Amino acid sequence: MGQALITDLYELAMAGSYLRRGMTTPATFSLYVRDLPPSRGFVVAAGLEDCLDYLQRFRFGPDDTAWLAGHGFPPDVVEALAALRFTGDVHAVQEGRVLVAGEPLLEVTAPLPEAQLVETFLLNRVTFQSALATKAARCRLAAGDMELIDFSLRRTHGTDAGLAVARVTAMAGFAATSNVEAARLLGLRAAGTMAHSYVQAFASEGDAFRAFVDDMPGPYTFLVDTYDTLDGVRVAVEVIHELGLEGPLAVRLDSGDLAALAHATRRVLDDAGLAHVRIFASGGLDEYGLEELRLAGAPVDAVGVGTKVGVAADAPYLDTVYKLVQLGPDPVTKLSVGKESLPGPKQVWRRAGAPDVLALRGEPGPPGAHPLLQPVLSGGGRLAAPTSVAAARRRLEADLAWLPDDARRIRDPRQPAAVLSEGLRALQAETRARARTRAAEAAP
Amino acid sequence: MGQALITDLYELAMAGSYLRRGMTTPATFSLYVRDLPPSRGFVVAAGLEDCLDYLQRFRFGPDDTAWLAGHGFPPDVVEALAALRFTGDVHAVQEGRVLVAGEPLLEVTAPLPEAQLVETFLLNRVTFQSALATKAARCRLAAGDMELIDFSLRRTHGTDAGLAVARVTAMAGFAATSNVEAARLLGLRAAGTMAHSYVQAFASEGDAFRAFVDDMPGPYTFLVDTYDTLDGVRVAVEVIHELGLEGPLAVRLDSGDLAALAHATRRVLDDAGLAHVRIFASGGLDEYGLEELRLAGAPVDAVGVGTKVGVAADAPYLDTVYKLVQLGPDPVTKLSVGKESLPGPKQVWRRAGAPDVLALRGEPGPPGAHPLLQPVLSGGGRLAAPTSVAAARRRLEADLAWLPDDARRIRDPRQPAAVLSEGLRALQAETRARARTRAAEAAP
Repeated sequence: MGQALITDLYELAMAGSYLRRGMTTPATFSLYVRDLPPSRGFVVAAGLEDCLDYLQRFRFGPDDTAWLAGHGFPPDVVEALAALRFTGDVHAVQEGRVLVAGEPLLEVTAPLPEAQLVETFLLNRVTFQSALATKAARCRLAAGDMELIDFSLRRTHGTDAGLAVARVTAMAGFAATSNVEAARLLGLRAAGTMAHSYVQAFASEGDAFRAFVDDMPGPYTFLVDTYDTLDGVRVAVEVIHELGLEGPLAVRLDSGDLAALAHATRRVLDDAGLAHVRIFASGGLDEYGLEELRLAGAPVDAVGVGTKVGVAADAPYLDTVYKLVQLGPDPVTKLSVGKESLPGPKQVWRRAGAPDVLALRGEPGPPGAHPLLQPVLSGGGRLAAPTSVAAARRRLEADLAWLPDDARRIRDPRQPAAVLSEGLRALQAETRARARTRAAEAAP
Repeated sequence: MGQALITDLYELAMAGSYLRRGMTTPATFSLYVRDLPPSRGFVVAAGLEDCLDYLQRFRFGPDDTAWLAGHGFPPDVVEALAALRFTGDVHAVQEGRVLVAGEPLLEVTAPLPEAQLVETFLLNRVTFQSALATKAARCRLAAGDMELIDFSLRRTHGTDAGLAVARVTAMAGFAATSNVEAARLLGLRAAGTMAHSYVQAFASEGDAFRAFVDDMPGPYTFLVDTYDTLDGVRVAVEVIHELGLEGPLAVRLDSGDLAALAHATRRVLDDAGLAHVRIFASGGLDEYGLEELRLAGAPVDAVGVGTKVGVAADAPYLDTVYKLVQLGPDPVTKLSVGKESLPGPKQVWRRAGAPDVLALRGEPGPPGAHPLLQPVLSGGGRLAAPTSVAAARRRLEADLAWLPDDARRIRDPRQPAAVLSEGLRALQAETRARARTRAAEAAP
């Protein structure tokens, strides 16, 4: 299970050609987001751990090479691919760090065929997980004091994506997930309530609530909107009193005008002496709906966010690229219209109260700044233990505090830009001129 | 690997409660799209095969039950779950069929705990695959005579999603995929070109093109926009002539104004006696861009569609629900504001030139109509061989032809509605009245 065929055909063709020709000079590719979606003021780095696992296990198995041989790949290429392992170095930004457009999330330096072969997988993992982590972070920013629970599993693009959403929402500060397998695998808190079908399966709401308490461990959240929401709240009050329930309790609103219903529900609960019973809301909410709820002063204590977060509905992809920036001793640039790239391996320098500086890897940073890209893989081997969700969460929280206010804004955020270092600007001018000359010379 | 914990916690809690109480009466749940996204005139059914595989393999393994026991599930519930298999029946619409809002994609009839437990997984698979299949079908409608290739793997939400995209794009009539693993597993044609980094790795474009031909099997598609697009086309012409290349050949445009460049490229190729060399385009295209290219009369022969199709960017989820419609002998309805459901197991009747009729399962259909829902699983066992991609493709093509023109429209499509049968309307009125009475009686 080397996953080596989980790639675009052209990666295999190009790598095969390089291997044939002995073009195994070290190459550096830089993976970054070219432009952010207009609705985003930042991007949260995620997906790195999957990438490192993949690189360490990278190999073509017998089934893989048999397929290649059967599809016209020359025998010497198939043989070379069978023996190939990833032996390169990776510099990367740690998961949970906040970046702006153009800043590398990771850079791969490896013999050219190896660096090329891994492009598709790295782009896949970094792109979707960073898109989802960014959406989750914006929900956390919008929610204020409201607790958030990941409810997305039924709408994510597959169950692997559901696992990734549970992980990045935890990184973003969500309190729990409804996804049991994710909770088990990642050590997260599993949470859930009950469905309308459960309430409907009993003769009355009260019977359903009592049965649930009888049969299952708490904490209990009673779904109150199957018939009439405020009647449902009154039934929950009755059951709580009748059974003398203690500990964490909540009622869940899942339809209608959530802010208005939350106010009315709060009154019913408070009048019944149940000020400690919390209000849980759900129903198509993401950062926009969460912000509205918060600004409306709705007394909602916790929210289950599902669909729109689980697919990052308003920005389900990022404009990520994996660009050749150095080949052997030569920095490389690209001139295609609207797709220019900056030459050379990079470093991002960050300090409080100032824009980031995007520099060449060897350049010194400004005083007081720290570098975001760190060596994480060397000669194909990991340099540090995998990132824990808790560590990523702390980094994300700190980095969000670093961001300018207007980049954190939910609607119409400003996108901060990194400043190019002197060294990078000079190299850019030089390689552009060289590439233009070369293009002119090469023209027939 | 029963996948039984890949679910929301509440499914386990509800099923546990039902098992404890012996509430194992047969229940029918109906899975349908409540409302279509505004940009969609139809939905393409997909994901069924994954669902049937899952149902047949459904079981809790020792790790699963250990987790449940450690998280407060009572011993009798854990024991009952360990022994549970899916023993129910499934009626479903075949993959590739075209539906409108409210028409069931599948209906599960099983003992209540079993039918409840499988909700999350079934919703996950049907939702994302149908969303992606619908996007792919719209691209195929927009593309006219242009051939389409799936290039989405680098942006899909994980590599499992990438496999699903390759499958549903093939169902929609795409000619090939760049995803090698998907091609291998599904028997699809793999296709690809070369990247800018390949061209940059050589001293000139011509050297790169010659090396590629030397090293790799065809068909060859030369990427011509690394430096200057039309110069690149001229280099490709030179190489084609020099090497006397025959067979399928193309040049690929990946940046700039694709329609204008395609016209200019066509002239260069034709003037060089290369009328048979095709033009391949790529770069952020989905049904909207494809339609523009077609309406502009751009001489583009094939298009690689990636990102936006791979995440169904403008409608990345569907408003799918899994609703209890029958419990034992009783049809069930739901009254929550904006979330009413229709009672009873259903059938969808289709005939040419008329809207579908959404009926009760036992009701006869209108003359000349055929039923879309078929029994596919009985007593937990499959009734037919898995759907082939080719069969789904034929069904999809036929169903698209059945759709009214304005539902097939790319921009601002009209959403056809199914007509409710007499039987369904009568039952709806009856169950609504009964549910209202019950809600009123139950109120405290």
